[in-house]
Amino acid sequence: MIEVITDLEAMRDVSKRVRDAGQTIGFVPTMGYLHSGHQSLILQAAAENDFPVLSIFVNPTQFAPDEDYETYPRDLARDSALAEAAGCRLIFAPPPQAIYPLDYSTYIEVTGVSALYCGKSRPTHFRGVTTIVAKLLNIVSPDRAYFGQKDAQQAFIIQKMVRELNMDVQIVVLPIVREADGLAMSSRNTYLSPEQRKAARVLHRALLQGRELFRGGLVKPDELKRAMVELIQAEPLARIDYVELVEPETFTPARSGTDPMLALLAVYVGQTRLIDNLLFSIGE
Amino acid sequence: MIEVITDLEAMRDVSKRVRDAGQTIGFVPTMGYLHSGHQSLILQAAAENDFPVLSIFVNPTQFAPDEDYETYPRDLARDSALAEAAGCRLIFAPPPQAIYPLDYSTYIEVTGVSALYCGKSRPTHFRGVTTIVAKLLNIVSPDRAYFGQKDAQQAFIIQKMVRELNMDVQIVVLPIVREADGLAMSSRNTYLSPEQRKAARVLHRALLQGRELFRGGLVKPDELKRAMVELIQAEPLARIDYVELVEPETFTPARSGTDPMLALLAVYVGQTRLIDNLLFSIGE
Repeated sequence: MIEVITDLEAMRDVSKRVRDAGQTIGFVPTMGYLHSGHQSLILQAAAENDFPVLSIFVNPTQFAPDEDYETYPRDLARDSALAEAAGCRLIFAPPPQAIYPLDYSTYIEVTGVSALYCGKSRPTHFRGVTTIVAKLLNIVSPDRAYFGQKDAQQAFIIQKMVRELNMDVQIVVLPIVREADGLAMSSRNTYLSPEQRKAARVLHRALLQGRELFRGGLVKPDELKRAMVELIQAEPLARIDYVELVEPETFTPARSGTDPMLALLAVYVGQTRLIDNLLFSIGE
Repeated sequence: MIEVITDLEAMRDVSKRVRDAGQTIGFVPTMGYLHSGHQSLILQAAAENDFPVLSIFVNPTQFAPDEDYETYPRDLARDSALAEAAGCRLIFAPPPQAIYPLDYSTYIEVTGVSALYCGKSRPTHFRGVTTIVAKLLNIVSPDRAYFGQKDAQQAFIIQKMVRELNMDVQIVVLPIVREADGLAMSSRNTYLSPEQRKAARVLHRALLQGRELFRGGLVKPDELKRAMVELIQAEPLARIDYVELVEPETFTPARSGTDPMLALLAVYVGQTRLIDNLLFSIGE
C-alpha cells in the first residue's frame, strides 16, 4: 500500500531525504476524488521525476461559505489505489487544522486577474488557491509541480505567482482529459444526474462550434461569444455564468483578430458549476 | 572588495553552490545605508552561518506615494565597506525592474495585524514588506534570516508569514542598537537637523519612563499610554503618530495587568517619522 503522510514536518523530512539522495520530486496537488485528468498528471510526474508525490487536501479557503466545501466528494481509499496505479510514491494528506491554525491570516493574491472570469463569481477563490499552492510547494519543495489546463485561469495565476514570487519550482500544465462525449473530467461531474450529465455536453459543444466559426474567419470576440452563448442557452438545464475570449499570454480580453484566442466558459447545470476552455487558433 | 551581485539567477546560482558544498547561508535583508543596527545583524549572521549574505534593495512597494522612496539615502560604496568589515561575504543588490517587472501584481498580506499600529498610518506598507521579504527569501534561500527588533511589528509579521506559509527558513530577531543618548539606530536619523536630533531623544525617554511606571505598579495600558503621550507632547518638535501597548505574542492590545507588555510608538520629528519600542516586564 502507498504511504500516506499527514504530518507537515514528516512530509518535509521525506522531501529532504529524497533531495539529499540526489533525486527529483514531482508534485501533483489535488483536492482528491481522482479522475483520469489527475491520473495524467501523476503519470507525467512519474515520467519526469524520481519521486512523484500527490497531495489530497480539500482546501477550505478556496470555497465561499455558500459553496460545496462540506459536500465535496472525499474517498482516500479509492484515491490511494488510483494514485498508486499511476506510479505515485507518496500521498500527503494533511488535516485542515494543521494547514490553517486558528489564528491563521496570511494570504497570497495575484491581484487584477484574480478578480476576472471565475474570480467575478468567486471573489475569494483564487486567493485561496494561490495561498494553498504556495504553502504546499513550500512544504513539499518539488522540482516540478503539475496542473491541469481544465482550470486554465488557475494555471495562469499559479504560473504568475511562482514567477513573481521567485519560487524555485517548474510549473507544468497538461491538456484537459475528456470523457468520450467531450465533457471535461472533473470531480464535480459526480454531482450530475443522468439527465444533467447529458446536458453538460453543451459546454464542449459550444467550444467546438466557436472554434469552427473562428477557423471560418469569425474573429470578433463579441460575435464568437454571442454564438456560443446562443448554443448554450438552447439547453434548458444549462445556465451561463460567463463566456469569455482572452489572450492566452496575458488573460486580458481578446482583441478582434488575435490568434490564438482562448475561449473560457463557466456554466451551471442544475446546482453544479462546470468550467471548460479551448484554444482557438487558425493554424491548428 | 566584496562581490556585489545584481542578477537574480546569478544570486540563485551562488546560493545553490554554497548549499551544495554543505555550507549554511545567513541572510540580512536591508534597504542599505547601513548603521550599527545592521552591522549587529551581519555579525550574528556571520557567527551562525558559513556564508553571510546582505541584500540592499530600497523596496518601492513598502513606500506610499507621498513617502520618502526617492530621497531614501543610498550609498553602495559606503555600505560595501561596512558590510565587508562586519564579515559579509556577498551583497545582493538587484535593480527595481528585475524585482518588479511592468505587469507585476502578486502580493502577500498578513491580514489583520498589518492594518494596525504602523499599518494605520501606512496602509500598504506591510504588504510591501512581506512581499519583498518572501521574494528575497525565495531567491537567496538562506538557512537563517536576520531582522532587527527596532521594527517590532515588521518582525512579528514576517515571523507570522514565514510560519503560516510554511517557508523553510529560521527567522532571527536581534535587539535594538541605540546611540549613546538612547535614540534607536535608523537610516532615517540622517534626515534630522541637529535640533531635531536632540528632540528625537524623547522617544526612548518616554519608553523608559513608561517602563518605570509599569515596574512601579501602573499596569493599566490606558494610563501608561497617557503618561508617555504627555511626556512626548512636552517636546515641541515632536508630533505623535501613535503610542500603543500590545501583548508581544499576539500583537493584540494589551489587557490590564499583562506581563510582559510591549510598548510601541511612532513619532514625527519635523517631517521624519521615527519608531521605537521597549518591552515592559516586572521581572526584568
